[in-house]
Amino acid sequence: MDRLIEIVLADRRGRVVAVDERLAPLTDRLIAFVAGGGKRLRPRFLRCGWLAAGTGPEPAGLGTVAVGLELLQACALLHDDVIDRSDTRRGAPSTHRAVAGEHAAAGLLGDGDHFGVSAALLLGDLALAWADDLFLEGSLAIGPAAVAAAAPVWQAMRTEVLGGQLLDLLVTAAPEGDPGLAAADAMAVNRWKTAAYTVERPLHLGAALAGADPECVVALRRFGVDVGIAFQLRDDLLGVFGDPAVTGKPAGDDLREGKRTVLVADARAALANGGVASDPDGLAELEAGLGAAGADTERLAAIVHASGAPQRIESQIARLGESAAATLDTAGADGRPVLAEPARDELRELLRRATDRRA
Amino acid sequence: MDRLIEIVLADRRGRVVAVDERLAPLTDRLIAFVAGGGKRLRPRFLRCGWLAAGTGPEPAGLGTVAVGLELLQACALLHDDVIDRSDTRRGAPSTHRAVAGEHAAAGLLGDGDHFGVSAALLLGDLALAWADDLFLEGSLAIGPAAVAAAAPVWQAMRTEVLGGQLLDLLVTAAPEGDPGLAAADAMAVNRWKTAAYTVERPLHLGAALAGADPECVVALRRFGVDVGIAFQLRDDLLGVFGDPAVTGKPAGDDLREGKRTVLVADARAALANGGVASDPDGLAELEAGLGAAGADTERLAAIVHASGAPQRIESQIARLGESAAATLDTAGADGRPVLAEPARDELRELLRRATDRRA
Repeated sequence: MDRLIEIVLADRRGRVVAVDERLAPLTDRLIAFVAGGGKRLRPRFLRCGWLAAGTGPEPAGLGTVAVGLELLQACALLHDDVIDRSDTRRGAPSTHRAVAGEHAAAGLLGDGDHFGVSAALLLGDLALAWADDLFLEGSLAIGPAAVAAAAPVWQAMRTEVLGGQLLDLLVTAAPEGDPGLAAADAMAVNRWKTAAYTVERPLHLGAALAGADPECVVALRRFGVDVGIAFQLRDDLLGVFGDPAVTGKPAGDDLREGKRTVLVADARAALANGGVASDPDGLAELEAGLGAAGADTERLAAIVHASGAPQRIESQIARLGESAAATLDTAGADGRPVLAEPARDELRELLRRATDRRA
Repeated sequence: MDRLIEIVLADRRGRVVAVDERLAPLTDRLIAFVAGGGKRLRPRFLRCGWLAAGTGPEPAGLGTVAVGLELLQACALLHDDVIDRSDTRRGAPSTHRAVAGEHAAAGLLGDGDHFGVSAALLLGDLALAWADDLFLEGSLAIGPAAVAAAAPVWQAMRTEVLGGQLLDLLVTAAPEGDPGLAAADAMAVNRWKTAAYTVERPLHLGAALAGADPECVVALRRFGVDVGIAFQLRDDLLGVFGDPAVTGKPAGDDLREGKRTVLVADARAALANGGVASDPDGLAELEAGLGAAGADTERLAAIVHASGAPQRIESQIARLGESAAATLDTAGADGRPVLAEPARDELRELLRRATDRRA
């Protein structure tokens, strides 16, 4: 994939450098970010969507669309890190921090932090524009019917993930209200910002490019929603209880950032509800400490743990996993499996990884 | 155009609001921004590009592509205002400032300024994604040959304008060097950030969608480069000497922001070169005052004026205008005009407005 990304982006890189050679280092930084990391989940789900349709072997254009998905994700990460003011990404400085760090060393003028944010903003825009280029190039290479079938899916995916990001912004800024509503909001952000965009829509996109029938698309999307939500719930647990050596993020990072996850919303609701886990002091301590500078994240993690939330989230992940596994074996009107065989094996493996991972 | 924008964006708006109803106000703010203002230059050049090919009356899909151009411009403006920390746009608060202003009134939590920047960032992303949606939708409606011919133009345009924005960022942060090189840098930013993207590429895009022959494309692009550069040079003059009541921007705004325009670079070079306009004191005062808080912009404008730069820029605009007018009358190998008649009339009018405007 890394090599494919460099090949596919070579002529686009050339066009930026043709504007001015001094743009090469920033452009190469973006390409290295895309080529160098991530779990490649979206390309794998895209490929499974294609294979599930049983249309035949993957065409070369599918790889181009896959690079487009990775570029879309690069835009989301660069811009999210600016919005969340995150200093690190994948265990290294985030793009805006890295560029800010080079500002002084290069003897540039002005506010280095703002320079870093501005560069990350524009590089994210470039990634988003290139993502669209590659979706169109790849699907045109597959054929005109592929463009017509896949364009609405690609378009819906982009609008949904941006809607999810805007909702995250609003929900994070909203005054703390009813913990039950907070859990519903956290789940809606999860649904649109992560689940649809990481699993459901890449599967759907691959199936649409392959000309899959509606039964196949429905099954893939149902599987995708379950796995996508489970994936994010696992992320919530890792963000509080994950091993920094494996996740590449500091311990308790979500608590330090005050992220409004389903896990934390569940803990707040349990602590507030007057039941067995009720603990007004713990609740007050948790709400005061979330996102506060210098908060004791080990103590906050212990409060979340004592609320019973982690076990409930684990059960939810297990239920979603069972539902997804059942969808994989769906039989169609003709009694045969709706999803073609090689896709089902790979999807079973991806389901296991999404729900059971440590990083 | 305003009504067309609302019609074309109605179902995309619906998809964001389907994520969550609370997203309606921010989505409507973006749509109102696109529908409510601007000179509609890009749609007009797009239309001229179509008409110049002499293929026939404009198809409905061309209007959809035109809305896409306006959305691309909305992304550029929203993100530019964040990068330039501009408080105003079109005589009203810029988007990030307006959203920040509502933050406190709505009783939201956190840093209102950062909330405004984050919202403007995501709304700009949404505009960029929708721009691509509409390019594809509009050109598919015209026909498959139109998509194949126009996609490379659309893609080049987006990469070029982002390259120009990145170059602007680098050039603005670079230590003041040789005034001659500074003038070349300012001209390169002008070329890519404005000229290509405002005039040359919209003309080229319209011609490509119409299946224009290479002679027509070459003439349109030559005309477009001249007019685009002249347009930006006029903007440079208005940014220093324009009437705030007409431009909607404060007097001397470019000097206050320390913008590295061709006008200012020319003034610096003239003041430094030891010729008639040589004025070491004026040069030192200008360089110290550009972009400095509390600088006397009236005094800085007087220094720029005394350097003779405005007259030289006026001559340059006049030369570019003559060159563009000559291109309009280019005859092809068959002795007939290369550009079809209705387009030439409209382009003559647009040329006059671009070079001669006051706002």
